[in-house]
Amino acid sequence: MEAKHDLVSNIKHCVSIIVDAFGGDNSPVEIIKGSIIAINLDQNIEITFTGDETKIKKELSLYKYDSSRIRIVHAPEIVTNDDSPVEAIRTKKESSIVKGLLMLNSDENSHAFISAGSSGGVLTASTLLLRRIKGVTRPALVPILPTINESRVALIDCGANADCKTNNLIQFAYMGVAFAKSVLNVENPRVGLLSNGAEDKKGNELNKSVFPILADAKSINFLGNVEARDILSGDYDVIVTDGFSGNIALKASEGVAQMLFKLIKTNILEGGLRAKIGYLLLKHALKKVAKLMDYNNKGGAVLLGLEKLVIKTHGSSKADSITAAIFQAKHIVDSNLLSSITEEIKQLNS
Amino acid sequence: MEAKHDLVSNIKHCVSIIVDAFGGDNSPVEIIKGSIIAINLDQNIEITFTGDETKIKKELSLYKYDSSRIRIVHAPEIVTNDDSPVEAIRTKKESSIVKGLLMLNSDENSHAFISAGSSGGVLTASTLLLRRIKGVTRPALVPILPTINESRVALIDCGANADCKTNNLIQFAYMGVAFAKSVLNVENPRVGLLSNGAEDKKGNELNKSVFPILADAKSINFLGNVEARDILSGDYDVIVTDGFSGNIALKASEGVAQMLFKLIKTNILEGGLRAKIGYLLLKHALKKVAKLMDYNNKGGAVLLGLEKLVIKTHGSSKADSITAAIFQAKHIVDSNLLSSITEEIKQLNS
Repeated sequence: MEAKHDLVSNIKHCVSIIVDAFGGDNSPVEIIKGSIIAINLDQNIEITFTGDETKIKKELSLYKYDSSRIRIVHAPEIVTNDDSPVEAIRTKKESSIVKGLLMLNSDENSHAFISAGSSGGVLTASTLLLRRIKGVTRPALVPILPTINESRVALIDCGANADCKTNNLIQFAYMGVAFAKSVLNVENPRVGLLSNGAEDKKGNELNKSVFPILADAKSINFLGNVEARDILSGDYDVIVTDGFSGNIALKASEGVAQMLFKLIKTNILEGGLRAKIGYLLLKHALKKVAKLMDYNNKGGAVLLGLEKLVIKTHGSSKADSITAAIFQAKHIVDSNLLSSITEEIKQLNS
Repeated sequence: MEAKHDLVSNIKHCVSIIVDAFGGDNSPVEIIKGSIIAINLDQNIEITFTGDETKIKKELSLYKYDSSRIRIVHAPEIVTNDDSPVEAIRTKKESSIVKGLLMLNSDENSHAFISAGSSGGVLTASTLLLRRIKGVTRPALVPILPTINESRVALIDCGANADCKTNNLIQFAYMGVAFAKSVLNVENPRVGLLSNGAEDKKGNELNKSVFPILADAKSINFLGNVEARDILSGDYDVIVTDGFSGNIALKASEGVAQMLFKLIKTNILEGGLRAKIGYLLLKHALKKVAKLMDYNNKGGAVLLGLEKLVIKTHGSSKADSITAAIFQAKHIVDSNLLSSITEEIKQLNS
């Protein structure tokens, strides 16, 4: 009996993930490599690749793996960054994104879709092809950022909705809280509203309409306005913003971090022998910092508000980011995020 | 005759700057120290301090300087960050900000006002108490940021206008171009529009309305949308945005830079002797990078669109930032920025 029980629980825990093998700058090589690493590390993961079957098979032939947990869905077309997303979803029905999301929608045994492809393509296709959680008006894209305390903070929305209304941001707050509770394991998530100053009265018109509603919401632990310089302070678990501002905050942070490491490198190279020896001695500390800052190694941005899980990884994702996103997907599926969001949205609407 | 000519040109070049001695976290000590350093370095600078006269005199007694180039306007009140700006301007008429700006407005021999005090206070008081350049609907706050190429980029607006309309952003572009031409000495400034993606079609509704107008403007060298990660790339001289998004981009950048240096420091301290020796050898290179990133050492943010010059320095300004802002003010007054903006706005409106 016990053996049977174990078998059942194993089957129950097997998470089935669809991976866009032809999304991102390093596809399919790094995408497939990262996926194989994941299934070889965890036997409770199954992967379905979407993309050109011949090319995927050729790439797969380089690896040893349990072939019973790999499937391929042939999808010869690719949605690129130059495509108009809405147009591409309509015309490129044989693309790796569209076929992956259609399968995710129709196959109840498929749990998640991961893509490093066109952001616009993934967001638009997900919104059009997947069902929304009841009561959600707009899905939101949520990256999980590192903080100075080595905790994590969810920035919601960071790119799915360039123009937002008051009720969108309120929903983002509730979805963010559900996410922080079930995925980041925070009991009473601290919520901030991204603004152009920390004082209560700061903000644009949108913020000023959102602030009093969040301040009055009993189930939200609302700490008020947060300046962009404090996003990574570790003082917040969820930061609420519209997709335009969130995208700017995220990418400005990314840009400065990249620039700083580049400048440090240049100055070391130009600093002569002394600086080079210094670098060798400091290399470990600097790499640790670089790794801590690189949120891509912790997975991708999660699209919240849909009945199935979609994760968008960086366009420049290499194998390690893909492996991380696959483990992230498994963790999120196991954490019952979707029912947690359903609960929070129900609470908001009641 | 030649001696007389020199005398005349000297008098003509003397720039008279009003400094808020009671603005910012380190006032009046660092404000006065930075000002004295400036007048001792350049005999063509005159300074009027606004603030508590007794305290200013006490602080001044610590230094040697040419007293004929220092004046004090007694202003015992202080506008703080907790004050409602509009309220404070009405009620605190004896504040260092209000008295400074009233003097700047009425005294034709005063050229600029510098404050490290309340951003809201300085912006609101400047807008209410100074005249706008003809045709300008909204003044804009412009920090000058360092780039990876060691060039500089002007981000306009970064906080004066949280909610903007299409024509505001168009004016920001023209004022930014005037600024880059006359102050940054760029002949044909490269202009970008801050957006949530580099592709032409990206953006929120505001951006989408601004993009085609800038693209059609013959006198604007418009390079299209720019992602926040490329602000510091050195590929742009002027980046146009609304004050809310600009503020977020600026502060997110600041936050990440601070966090990175903090993390590097922590990791060095925890890295044992090896890391500490490495740090000693690398110190010079790291400090050079920190200095390059610290835009506050290059002066403050300039408020564009008014008939007189206002510079807002960081609330945490120390003496070196104040000295830099004073030299920045002198450079801007000498560069005829105001007539350059008048020209650009005339061109826009014709």
